[in-house]
Amino acid sequence: MKNIVLIGSGNVATHLGEALVGAGVVVTQVWSRTVDNAQLLAGKIGSEAVSDLALIRDDADAYIFSLVDDALGQVLELFPHKDKVLIHTAGSLSLDVLREYSAHCGVMYPLQTFSKSKSMSLSDVRILIEASDVGLLDRVRVLASRLSSRVSDASSEQRKYLHVAAVFACNFTNHLYSLAEDVLVQNGLDFNLVRPLILETAQKALLHSPHDVQTGPAVRGDQKIVDSHLELLNGDADLQKLYRDLSARIMGEPRF
Amino acid sequence: MKNIVLIGSGNVATHLGEALVGAGVVVTQVWSRTVDNAQLLAGKIGSEAVSDLALIRDDADAYIFSLVDDALGQVLELFPHKDKVLIHTAGSLSLDVLREYSAHCGVMYPLQTFSKSKSMSLSDVRILIEASDVGLLDRVRVLASRLSSRVSDASSEQRKYLHVAAVFACNFTNHLYSLAEDVLVQNGLDFNLVRPLILETAQKALLHSPHDVQTGPAVRGDQKIVDSHLELLNGDADLQKLYRDLSARIMGEPRF
Repeated sequence: MKNIVLIGSGNVATHLGEALVGAGVVVTQVWSRTVDNAQLLAGKIGSEAVSDLALIRDDADAYIFSLVDDALGQVLELFPHKDKVLIHTAGSLSLDVLREYSAHCGVMYPLQTFSKSKSMSLSDVRILIEASDVGLLDRVRVLASRLSSRVSDASSEQRKYLHVAAVFACNFTNHLYSLAEDVLVQNGLDFNLVRPLILETAQKALLHSPHDVQTGPAVRGDQKIVDSHLELLNGDADLQKLYRDLSARIMGEPRF
Repeated sequence: MKNIVLIGSGNVATHLGEALVGAGVVVTQVWSRTVDNAQLLAGKIGSEAVSDLALIRDDADAYIFSLVDDALGQVLELFPHKDKVLIHTAGSLSLDVLREYSAHCGVMYPLQTFSKSKSMSLSDVRILIEASDVGLLDRVRVLASRLSSRVSDASSEQRKYLHVAAVFACNFTNHLYSLAEDVLVQNGLDFNLVRPLILETAQKALLHSPHDVQTGPAVRGDQKIVDSHLELLNGDADLQKLYRDLSARIMGEPRF
């Protein structure tokens, strides 16, 4: 597959488009509902920007859909070229969402968190692939392998659980970082103070099962500290509840 | 302060004891309620192990209490040497917990997460210090500066908020890693798949405000995915509830 049309211009589409072009694949067009977004990415990777689905070329080897999952169905509904090779990049969506539009469909899910504000090489990112038939799976594998050295097969079912796990390990974790920042800033303290802690906690989880390296008042059963923290969070009932729930979970965890 | 008695043999005491000795400070004794634990640490740092408080020497320049916070009060109650320099290492405890036992007291709180299973140099760890008077604060600063290049003053009040923030950023985060591991293992998948995600999420928070780099279905308002994840977690009502609460928090966050 040497000639791709990229549908989408968000975080994943941006990283993917750059990686495709970096690997020598031609991205002929970038489609986005918002023409400015299409142009921004298309400009970076030497593609044509389109915001009208009717203008999408019919000669691409594959159409890669990298959209907010909610938008994918709407775009597919209006997509003009049926029975072409359609590929999506979504962790949580089954291959089946593409089947009603084409018999030739696949998935390339890069298992990483992307932000436009932080550049990242796809070359070390695991890409999980799936396809409607063995022949296409091989072609998807060849394409994915041009982007990354870590390509694995995963079924739609497996991808779903992986995505849930990723939400806990990444999205929810980042939200906890935000809460820590809020607590500090609201009390005139600098978020930098806990940044080394954030890195160390992550690095520990790279080497150990997180169950084995849990630290803090809850796992020590230090109810006095837990209570004093709850007291401190008195002004924010929601945050207090989250602290209580998470502490209770940790206290109730079976010990290893 | 060249001659220290270390009260405690847990994660923090172990790292502190090793760092003190590495910095040329003599740790004459290590006390722990459990003689085996006292011996384990004392053996590593060339100290005498004691498990009887009555056997603690009275000639130390300072007594550093590095205990589970719940235990500190009990041990202080029985501690034989009043009015010596008493120092604790706890983030959440006020300096006041020491005042009723000595007029000369201080705090040295290393702001990091310690596990016995992972070695770590204290030299880059921020140590927050406090003391009952300016003279002792200077002496505590000199001691802490032998261990780390990052020593800052922090009041008991500031330390409390810092500790709450650290619980969110580190302890609760690690618990989320555990939950991710559970979801994966229960579905025959390898925790290694999300480890790169964990590291990237942490690294992003070192460079950005976590509010600005939040990713995932909740922040995208992708209710379909959130619902499908909740459905997937159907077998574990508690976990489902945590997923729902955290997603609601992220969805309700003011946008920046």
